[in-house]
Amino acid sequence: MSESYSKLTCTFQRLARLQHAITFLQWDQLVMMPTHGNKSRSQAITELVGLHHEMLTAPELVDHFDQAGNEDLTSLENRSLLEMEREWRRASCVPAELVRAKSLAGLRCEHGWREQRKENDWDGFLKNFKEVVDLSRQEARVRQEADPDRFETPYDALLDLYCTGDNSQLITTVFRELKKELPVLMEEVMDSQSREKAVAIEGKFSLSNQKELCRELMVLLGFDFSRGRLDESMHPFSTGDHGDNRITTRYREDEFVEALQATAHETGHASYENGLPEEWRGLPVGQARNMCLHESQSLLFEKQIFLARPFFGYFSKFIHAAFPQLVDLSGDQIWHGITQVKPNLIRIEADELTYPMHIILRYEIENALINGELGPEEIPDAWNEKMQQYLGISTEGNFRDGCLQDIHWTDGSFGYFPSYTLGAVNGAQIFRIIKERYGDWQERLNRGDVGFILDWLASEIWQKGSVLESQDLLMAATGESTNPTYFLDHIKARYLKRQY
Amino acid sequence: MSESYSKLTCTFQRLARLQHAITFLQWDQLVMMPTHGNKSRSQAITELVGLHHEMLTAPELVDHFDQAGNEDLTSLENRSLLEMEREWRRASCVPAELVRAKSLAGLRCEHGWREQRKENDWDGFLKNFKEVVDLSRQEARVRQEADPDRFETPYDALLDLYCTGDNSQLITTVFRELKKELPVLMEEVMDSQSREKAVAIEGKFSLSNQKELCRELMVLLGFDFSRGRLDESMHPFSTGDHGDNRITTRYREDEFVEALQATAHETGHASYENGLPEEWRGLPVGQARNMCLHESQSLLFEKQIFLARPFFGYFSKFIHAAFPQLVDLSGDQIWHGITQVKPNLIRIEADELTYPMHIILRYEIENALINGELGPEEIPDAWNEKMQQYLGISTEGNFRDGCLQDIHWTDGSFGYFPSYTLGAVNGAQIFRIIKERYGDWQERLNRGDVGFILDWLASEIWQKGSVLESQDLLMAATGESTNPTYFLDHIKARYLKRQY
Repeated sequence: MSESYSKLTCTFQRLARLQHAITFLQWDQLVMMPTHGNKSRSQAITELVGLHHEMLTAPELVDHFDQAGNEDLTSLENRSLLEMEREWRRASCVPAELVRAKSLAGLRCEHGWREQRKENDWDGFLKNFKEVVDLSRQEARVRQEADPDRFETPYDALLDLYCTGDNSQLITTVFRELKKELPVLMEEVMDSQSREKAVAIEGKFSLSNQKELCRELMVLLGFDFSRGRLDESMHPFSTGDHGDNRITTRYREDEFVEALQATAHETGHASYENGLPEEWRGLPVGQARNMCLHESQSLLFEKQIFLARPFFGYFSKFIHAAFPQLVDLSGDQIWHGITQVKPNLIRIEADELTYPMHIILRYEIENALINGELGPEEIPDAWNEKMQQYLGISTEGNFRDGCLQDIHWTDGSFGYFPSYTLGAVNGAQIFRIIKERYGDWQERLNRGDVGFILDWLASEIWQKGSVLESQDLLMAATGESTNPTYFLDHIKARYLKRQY
Repeated sequence: MSESYSKLTCTFQRLARLQHAITFLQWDQLVMMPTHGNKSRSQAITELVGLHHEMLTAPELVDHFDQAGNEDLTSLENRSLLEMEREWRRASCVPAELVRAKSLAGLRCEHGWREQRKENDWDGFLKNFKEVVDLSRQEARVRQEADPDRFETPYDALLDLYCTGDNSQLITTVFRELKKELPVLMEEVMDSQSREKAVAIEGKFSLSNQKELCRELMVLLGFDFSRGRLDESMHPFSTGDHGDNRITTRYREDEFVEALQATAHETGHASYENGLPEEWRGLPVGQARNMCLHESQSLLFEKQIFLARPFFGYFSKFIHAAFPQLVDLSGDQIWHGITQVKPNLIRIEADELTYPMHIILRYEIENALINGELGPEEIPDAWNEKMQQYLGISTEGNFRDGCLQDIHWTDGSFGYFPSYTLGAVNGAQIFRIIKERYGDWQERLNRGDVGFILDWLASEIWQKGSVLESQDLLMAATGESTNPTYFLDHIKARYLKRQY
């Protein structure tokens, strides 16, 4: 008998149904809802989040977990139990009072930030932000104390909410290598690209043609529109549930590549979700492993497939059909135009090569901040110093385009940033195995065939859900844990050698 | 102190938040969701419906209602208490087992009906339908017993779920008058229209222009797109919550008036909802009064405003702009073309004059059916007999276009049909008062001005929520309870005299 395990399974499936409701109400809020719907919507979401939390922290779960540990379970069931326990512990280890206080402080800080950023008002921001940092440090300590064997530092406990299983020791090692190589590479690439005379892609690009083009790209990338949607929102994102994973992108009339890149990126996220194992539907063990792997899939779709020179060559005929004014530019010319490297103040505008330096900077600051080695008031100086060191740009006095540019810290989402670059590194590592396995990968991409990649990802990554820990999953799929070599190889091949 | 009343208020506000979630998940299911999302979606909605029911029938509510009755409440608070109690009693008086059984039988019957209707298979349908009728009769009895002072017959108890406050005695009286007059009027109108030589509106009408035209119509009808949306669905409907009321319509390439009529109709529903009193937000007393009044608003928008000859004359310039191929037809010619009367087998295709006969037929059958005076197997004969008598059409052996044409009975929604015609009657009665108050109403409509109608409806109907019983509300607004005279006057004016 495994009565307690069954009860837990049943509870987590109910939780998944509540989460489904929250997910799609939030999607609607960002994509469909008219402005005056916000009050009712926010109240409804808050109510559901409260019910979800109540169900997940109900006192009887303590006993169920105690007893389920002694029940006769298969090894897969044990994994499932472990993932349920992880989610339960995460929700129940932080006192409700602290959750509420952090949520309020975060809302206040984020709200103020929207104006303070525009006005370059670091001092105004700092007033609210100090409380967010203080409460986040408290949260980190509480989370660390709840599982001291797994978390070496308070920061690790926050990191684990997003990069589950990938700790700061691993990340620091990976980032150390990138820090050593990327600034040098950047100089080399900029020097070699200065001789390229790449064309700028300019003009007016009809929004409806862009939308159609993005849909065509999704179809080429294997997206099944009976299992999801493409819509438009202020910031591109991906969300959903089994059988219904939705992505958004955004369009600008003076530029069309950004919408396509975001579409490819979000299609990667949605494909991972749609490929998760049906048999673990609604349970934590059936979810995507962590954000570092999630981001590996989105970046694999965006950088390794869409931006691959052979795929882009194939796709250029769609671009020409959508925008006949570009017909004099070959796919290769466009590709050269959009793969230029240049250090930039703004993370979200950074190219593939310099992007990790933005992340490393943030990682180092938030790590020190949460562990109490850096005060919030010291952030601007630390930011400026690192920007100069890593990218050769000063942000002195320019908070707007410096430490005030991101939303992540305003509500205390510390530990999220590293997953972007871990994802890029994991994505390159995974794609390298696929390239090895399929020696003709360039010819395949050149005729628009990505099926072999999807099949491989489905069986080696997506179908695994959370059955393995992140590094074990990567080990099983690629033969080693996260290793920055392949990302660096990829950058050299694309930007120095201009191979693919 | 009014502690119990406050607790009840708090509970009903939470219920409204759950209902908000259910509402928008269902909207999304019908309007946005890709097909493979259905499994997760249905489970999530079922979970929320269950939580809603659990909260509404929680044992502690019994005490709260007991005690709140003795608390010192204002007369408005007493009304609010009464409406909360009504909702609570409705949910708690039917045993959970019966609810479940009816829901399952209804799903089975509706599912089978989709094929059986196509195949004209009454016998196959009857097998499932008998159980639906049996369980609906049980439900009706239980509901009647829970409030025997209010419900004279079991059918009245089901009727009250939709036509709250309008009982079968009232409805029978109103319908008796319509039955007497409408068949005679139909003959007279058809005779006089046979001499009209009305033009048929034919052609190909671009869907995107139709969409734009529907939006223009909504703006003319005072719809605020920051408080709602227009989308597309298989069957037009309206749904939403405070500040976010959404409607849908459907488009056909060979016809454009249908989409406009549905748009005007649903805009009426949405305007009622958006006009409900903000101070009673989330509480039963702040909801629309009943379906007979809801339908009065949608039909007032559709039939009394949009189809009014002067308004249509104004609107025809928008039609001409959208469809230049019609520029040789005057607004009046189009209006004559689309206001032709002809008896029809199908309710939803019926014109304004014959539509009530379809409803009266259904009302008489379902009333007898639920009260045990007619067996489900006798329906086809009763249907055929009444169709011959009321509209001069036989449905013998033609179940598809006879008693199998509607979805309403398949899941046991008995008591819904009368609201369509009560709505038409109430709508005409309300509009007659507005016409009296604004002697220049035709000139106003002729220049597209409907603001005076919206203002009147807002203060006399929408802002009242459920503070009054339906007939009291109508009495306060029009000086009398539901009276079919004004609907008959309207029909004569429009179809016989061709006035407006």
